[in-house]
Amino acid sequence: MKVKKFSKRAGLSPGTLLHVGERKVDDIKISIMDYDDAHLREMDVDTVEACGQFTKTDSITWINISGIHDVDMIQKLGNCFYLHPLVLEDVLNTEQRPKMDDYDAYLFLSLKMVYPDADYQTIRYEQISLIVGPSYVISLQEVEKDVFDAVRERIRHAKGHIRKKGSDYLAYALIDLVVDHYFKILEELGEKIETLQDAVIENPEPSSLAVIQTLKKEVLFLRKSIWPLREIVNTLTRGDSELIHEDIIIYLRDVYDHTIQIIDTIETFRDMLSGTLDIYLSNMSNRMNEVMKVLTIMASIFIPMTFIAGIYGMNFKYMPELDWAWSYPVLLLVLLGIFLAMIFWFKQKKWF
Amino acid sequence: MKVKKFSKRAGLSPGTLLHVGERKVDDIKISIMDYDDAHLREMDVDTVEACGQFTKTDSITWINISGIHDVDMIQKLGNCFYLHPLVLEDVLNTEQRPKMDDYDAYLFLSLKMVYPDADYQTIRYEQISLIVGPSYVISLQEVEKDVFDAVRERIRHAKGHIRKKGSDYLAYALIDLVVDHYFKILEELGEKIETLQDAVIENPEPSSLAVIQTLKKEVLFLRKSIWPLREIVNTLTRGDSELIHEDIIIYLRDVYDHTIQIIDTIETFRDMLSGTLDIYLSNMSNRMNEVMKVLTIMASIFIPMTFIAGIYGMNFKYMPELDWAWSYPVLLLVLLGIFLAMIFWFKQKKWF
Amino acid sequence: MKVKKFSKRAGLSPGTLLHVGERKVDDIKISIMDYDDAHLREMDVDTVEACGQFTKTDSITWINISGIHDVDMIQKLGNCFYLHPLVLEDVLNTEQRPKMDDYDAYLFLSLKMVYPDADYQTIRYEQISLIVGPSYVISLQEVEKDVFDAVRERIRHAKGHIRKKGSDYLAYALIDLVVDHYFKILEELGEKIETLQDAVIENPEPSSLAVIQTLKKEVLFLRKSIWPLREIVNTLTRGDSELIHEDIIIYLRDVYDHTIQIIDTIETFRDMLSGTLDIYLSNMSNRMNEVMKVLTIMASIFIPMTFIAGIYGMNFKYMPELDWAWSYPVLLLVLLGIFLAMIFWFKQKKWF
Amino acid sequence: MKVKKFSKRAGLSPGTLLHVGERKVDDIKISIMDYDDAHLREMDVDTVEACGQFTKTDSITWINISGIHDVDMIQKLGNCFYLHPLVLEDVLNTEQRPKMDDYDAYLFLSLKMVYPDADYQTIRYEQISLIVGPSYVISLQEVEKDVFDAVRERIRHAKGHIRKKGSDYLAYALIDLVVDHYFKILEELGEKIETLQDAVIENPEPSSLAVIQTLKKEVLFLRKSIWPLREIVNTLTRGDSELIHEDIIIYLRDVYDHTIQIIDTIETFRDMLSGTLDIYLSNMSNRMNEVMKVLTIMASIFIPMTFIAGIYGMNFKYMPELDWAWSYPVLLLVLLGIFLAMIFWFKQKKWF
Amino acid sequence: MKVKKFSKRAGLSPGTLLHVGERKVDDIKISIMDYDDAHLREMDVDTVEACGQFTKTDSITWINISGIHDVDMIQKLGNCFYLHPLVLEDVLNTEQRPKMDDYDAYLFLSLKMVYPDADYQTIRYEQISLIVGPSYVISLQEVEKDVFDAVRERIRHAKGHIRKKGSDYLAYALIDLVVDHYFKILEELGEKIETLQDAVIENPEPSSLAVIQTLKKEVLFLRKSIWPLREIVNTLTRGDSELIHEDIIIYLRDVYDHTIQIIDTIETFRDMLSGTLDIYLSNMSNRMNEVMKVLTIMASIFIPMTFIAGIYGMNFKYMPELDWAWSYPVLLLVLLGIFLAMIFWFKQKKWF
Repeated sequence: MKVKKFSKRAGLSPGTLLHVGERKVDDIKISIMDYDDAHLREMDVDTVEACGQFTKTDSITWINISGIHDVDMIQKLGNCFYLHPLVLEDVLNTEQRPKMDDYDAYLFLSLKMVYPDADYQTIRYEQISLIVGPSYVISLQEVEKDVFDAVRERIRHAKGHIRKKGSDYLAYALIDLVVDHYFKILEELGEKIETLQDAVIENPEPSSLAVIQTLKKEVLFLRKSIWPLREIVNTLTRGDSELIHEDIIIYLRDVYDHTIQIIDTIETFRDMLSGTLDIYLSNMSNRMNEVMKVLTIMASIFIPMTFIAGIYGMNFKYMPELDWAWSYPVLLLVLLGIFLAMIFWFKQKKWF
Repeated sequence: MKVKKFSKRAGLSPGTLLHVGERKVDDIKISIMDYDDAHLREMDVDTVEACGQFTKTDSITWINISGIHDVDMIQKLGNCFYLHPLVLEDVLNTEQRPKMDDYDAYLFLSLKMVYPDADYQTIRYEQISLIVGPSYVISLQEVEKDVFDAVRERIRHAKGHIRKKGSDYLAYALIDLVVDHYFKILEELGEKIETLQDAVIENPEPSSLAVIQTLKKEVLFLRKSIWPLREIVNTLTRGDSELIHEDIIIYLRDVYDHTIQIIDTIETFRDMLSGTLDIYLSNMSNRMNEVMKVLTIMASIFIPMTFIAGIYGMNFKYMPELDWAWSYPVLLLVLLGIFLAMIFWFKQKKWF
Repeated sequence: MKVKKFSKRAGLSPGTLLHVGERKVDDIKISIMDYDDAHLREMDVDTVEACGQFTKTDSITWINISGIHDVDMIQKLGNCFYLHPLVLEDVLNTEQRPKMDDYDAYLFLSLKMVYPDADYQTIRYEQISLIVGPSYVISLQEVEKDVFDAVRERIRHAKGHIRKKGSDYLAYALIDLVVDHYFKILEELGEKIETLQDAVIENPEPSSLAVIQTLKKEVLFLRKSIWPLREIVNTLTRGDSELIHEDIIIYLRDVYDHTIQIIDTIETFRDMLSGTLDIYLSNMSNRMNEVMKVLTIMASIFIPMTFIAGIYGMNFKYMPELDWAWSYPVLLLVLLGIFLAMIFWFKQKKWF
Repeated sequence: MKVKKFSKRAGLSPGTLLHVGERKVDDIKISIMDYDDAHLREMDVDTVEACGQFTKTDSITWINISGIHDVDMIQKLGNCFYLHPLVLEDVLNTEQRPKMDDYDAYLFLSLKMVYPDADYQTIRYEQISLIVGPSYVISLQEVEKDVFDAVRERIRHAKGHIRKKGSDYLAYALIDLVVDHYFKILEELGEKIETLQDAVIENPEPSSLAVIQTLKKEVLFLRKSIWPLREIVNTLTRGDSELIHEDIIIYLRDVYDHTIQIIDTIETFRDMLSGTLDIYLSNMSNRMNEVMKVLTIMASIFIPMTFIAGIYGMNFKYMPELDWAWSYPVLLLVLLGIFLAMIFWFKQKKWF
Repeated sequence: MKVKKFSKRAGLSPGTLLHVGERKVDDIKISIMDYDDAHLREMDVDTVEACGQFTKTDSITWINISGIHDVDMIQKLGNCFYLHPLVLEDVLNTEQRPKMDDYDAYLFLSLKMVYPDADYQTIRYEQISLIVGPSYVISLQEVEKDVFDAVRERIRHAKGHIRKKGSDYLAYALIDLVVDHYFKILEELGEKIETLQDAVIENPEPSSLAVIQTLKKEVLFLRKSIWPLREIVNTLTRGDSELIHEDIIIYLRDVYDHTIQIIDTIETFRDMLSGTLDIYLSNMSNRMNEVMKVLTIMASIFIPMTFIAGIYGMNFKYMPELDWAWSYPVLLLVLLGIFLAMIFWFKQKKWF
């Protein structure tokens, strides 16, 4: 599924707008927050053009658009904010790898938001695009409107520094939120892995292998989206862009530390999963060993005894033992002796 | 097959022209597109010398040559455009690794175009050589004329910026097309790998292993041709060559992102294939386990019972049990008891 | 357990203080050592504010706080020493990866102290935060007060240079102590690994695998905490901060060498553990071999002999051998011959 | 064999001349080619001193010496051309790793020439030393005189640029020849690996494993000699030495590309060989599976049936079935039924 | 053993002198060589203080101390030559990782000398410390006095340049000697590995695995000591220290090449050992295959035949075959037929 939608664009002129990915939401919603230290205006608008007026003021404007399947709307957004066609193309392509481009007048960031599926079974990825200008931030989401609510609340209640700082701080807050969601996913993954490991140690079943592989793949995809994110944040902390002010860099460095911690944890998960595979395989082979031991013990005890019984089942005319009165009880004793000797021998070999 | 043609050139003077590779096309076709913002001329010519006249004008000239087995023709091309002998040598050598050389007056790029075989079974590689001058681009292909049709159409219908930009944009458009073809191949490979993985989980057969190995090799070869391509595009984005203008670099950076995405996907494929191998091997060993369990259960149940039957098949004269009236039914009950006890024991061990 | 507490902070404003981790101690203790070459004052104080007075003097002040669960206290500490909110956040977050931040006026270091559990079974991690100012060092611990006693003694008895040097030397002494604790843990781990290896060679049991995996995980976590520590010390030796004087760098380089030695040893442990896994798996497979050999030898010897006995147990009327006088002894000799031939054959195969 | 001759020199003063390696040729031959654009002189000389006169002229002089076991001769060569004692030491030590040293007045290169053994079974390594001065090149070989014949021919017939260029071009031509020989070896290795892979897929034999290991070792040794060669050529292309002129660097870059292609191919070979090992091991385990299935099927069918036959072989007096007229044919039918049920069951399990 | 002595120093003040390691020699011997181009004085002294006088002269002084367990003596040495306390600490700590520190006035090097054990079974490590001043070299050994004899002889007989060069050349000569000893060890290791490989191919025994692991560990420890040595020599060749003159660097570069060659060889050994492990494991599994085949063939042949014999051992009254005259010989022929058919079938499967 993950690998199927790459080639739609092949041969198209760059800057040709085309939505790549599935349409996840019916209506597009555009909501605006315009604020400075003293004032705050919040509203929903219908058209992208309505956004333009806010950017001329000194106050910080955050335009959040959820639903990106409408190519026309994106084109209008591009016209309104003088965005490069490649930016629009990347906004529309949900298969985009996380990246950052510095277009002097604004920064473009493409990120992956992760959250658990409704039934906590698989990880869902949503693309978040951020366009960070001197006094505005445009965020584009595929679906939900509520992932950024924590930041919205902080703006509304003027918590922390957010109302006193510029668009770069707002961008930082959004990136920080995206990174924090990775931690949530990691927790759930971590629990799944530990549950799996316990299950495999206790009772390895062939189905465990499929679970190991599925978790491996999820860890792999997480890794694929966090590595470029780490690179993006690292680039931001270098302070090359004039849009990022000195005092924000210390915050970005903190985010950078978090991305490294996420990568560390992902590596640990990989190691734990391959350790689990080792345990699984070794337990399978232990079971095989058990099976073989049972067979060997049963066969080694009874095959020789059956042979001896077979001897005295022969119909030769002249077999003196057959006529002796004590033959039968003596033979039973001999067989019992063989039986006990075998048991003793296997005990000594510690086979059971 | 891939490793067999290296040594033809050993000991030859550098610049000695020699076609390395198989001749894939009968006739050589030379087609020219000469365009600027306002005008467009398109024609096919017979000789390479006819191309020379176009390069003196300010308009952009794209010379596409399909069929590179004619050493004389390549030599004439070299004379006409003052190309270094090593360039001609590399154009003729289809075993060439993707590379870029900057000869100040022009850039030379050697790329690998990939497409699926007619029956979608294997990946075919075709070498594309690009010579990018200030106002011209020469592209040399091994076979088909139609892979560049998407670009040709954009020139004809003046789609996007292509008619307004220089030879560097044309070169970018061609490289972009080559990179886009990798995505197509990746999609097909991805589907094959997923089909294989499902097949292996459901019903692993010895033949699956050969398929895994074949896919591994294909991924390996893809990787070998995309890595140097990534390096080439990266070098181009650094903007060291005067032939590449500032405004093109943002486009090349986009291509660079694509090459990284391709490499990411290839790495994922490698991981998926080795995961598939793990599943395969583990399933084989599960089957072995099944086989051994059947054997052990059958043998453990019947061998002891056969022994008991053997006891009473002995021909001793004095075996009191033989004469008792209830011996036979009692024995049958005893055997049934052993049978049931065994079944119960194996059930408890969860062997079936 | 290690992976469960990441997400508490998600969505919070940066600088919002929140204690992440378990509360490991009941009461918070704040102890102060204020010293220079000639004088030494030692005391315990109740409130953080009481610390402020010492920092205005020229003498070196070491404030050690054990117990970090009190958010208010940490906030007051921040106010008192003008610490950045992110520093306070990191002090409170015990899941923090080891890191160093240079805030010009002071250095902030977050380290992991390691020590064995009470019963020497698992490794415990405690977070140590160091704030190194021009004339003071603040150290914050999660639990115990006595890990730094060695340094305290050196200050009390003016051993070595510690009383003659500045706050940077004190910081170095504390870091050195942290690093030295890694060596202690390594020794214990090393002994455990060697004991395990001997046990696995002598008598591999399925439980050994779990021990291997547990030790692997411990080595993994150690590695995760020493690598960033090495990076921190390396950064310090580069002498970028004005808080670290020239003459301290040679000492820090010594610590750096130690961190590399620790990493070397950890890599050795990894190699030893995977070597142990190899031995374990191979021994398991040797045992399987043994089991199979016993079965094969028993079956190969007695099955053919049972067949022969079976032949003469048939009830055909016309079987001339049955009536011969010497049949029985001859047959017994034949069976003995077969038995000996089999034994000889297996001996030659070196199967026992 | 490869690892046995290192220590002969231990403790010797550096510059002490000692031949390390086996003497591969009886007589030393010294042949000289002295040429410029217009003239060419070719001759064999007996003593090294005779070479000196040529170096004073402007023409390019190529002195080729085959046979390096004569320490005196090497010493005289050193005196004649003012070579550093370490150069002479390295010329004599055939266990030398490929390297380049820049002694301002001349460059010293130590290379490994590879060619197949007479019977195409193993790869032979010969050490080639090159001393490149402003107007001369001294090449020293261990054995044969004819590996450089391709270059000699080009000088004789003034093919390409060789007669118009300086000593650096001659050195390039010789290095190029050495690199081209790697391609030849790679072709043969590639064919061997593919033959092996086919053999292993079709009919894996224990001996295949030894072949895999041997090929692995050969690939390993090739890799060990090509990596430093790549580094040498890379250093040369950087143009730090005044002995290498601007116009030669483009040629050296071409050689550099070749070395990378060789390394790429070697990596592919490594991957193919480990893939082959996977196939081999998996096929071995498939065979085991087959063996076990045969055993299980045979035993599962006949052991229960034998038991039933055993029942009616018992000698109890009161066994009503024994006296019934239809017992025997009914029993035979029952046995047949069991047999067919078993066959059907195994068929359904797809065991055969 | 290797991992047990790290923590002795924990918590000690840096510069506190403490001997870490076992005392390997009874008496300390201090021997001095004082030489220049024309003169040479050699003597043994009793106290370290006696050494001081030599360093004031222009002649080169080499002070060799064997036996480092005497902390007082080392302290006196430090006072006499104004050595940093950390140097003295490192000299005394035989668990020190090889390192180099540049203290402007002198260089401090800590190296590991390797030699085979008396019975050539294990590798012994001895720590060599070198203090290289402008006109003196102090070398400290743990045990023997004779490892440096080769250099001593060269000084005595004025072989090579040693008497004409400075203390840097003497240091080079000693480092070179240490590196040469690695080659000797490598030769022996190489022979052991090859012997092992042959043994494993011919007759794999469970004990081989332990040998593989032991050799792996030895290679691992060698690698741990040669890597930092390579780094040290590389640093020296960079010529940052004024104590190392220009003309010595070419010699050090030669040593550097040797260290790379050693590392190359060690990597080859690692590959060979893991190849040997592959062969071992695969041979074990081949043997298992053999065992299983024997069992399967024996059981498959005789179990069905035993069943047939069992049929005619039944005691039914009405079994017509029992009364026929030719039943017995016909049955024997049938059994022979089954036997031959089975043999033929297994032959065709190539099972023997």
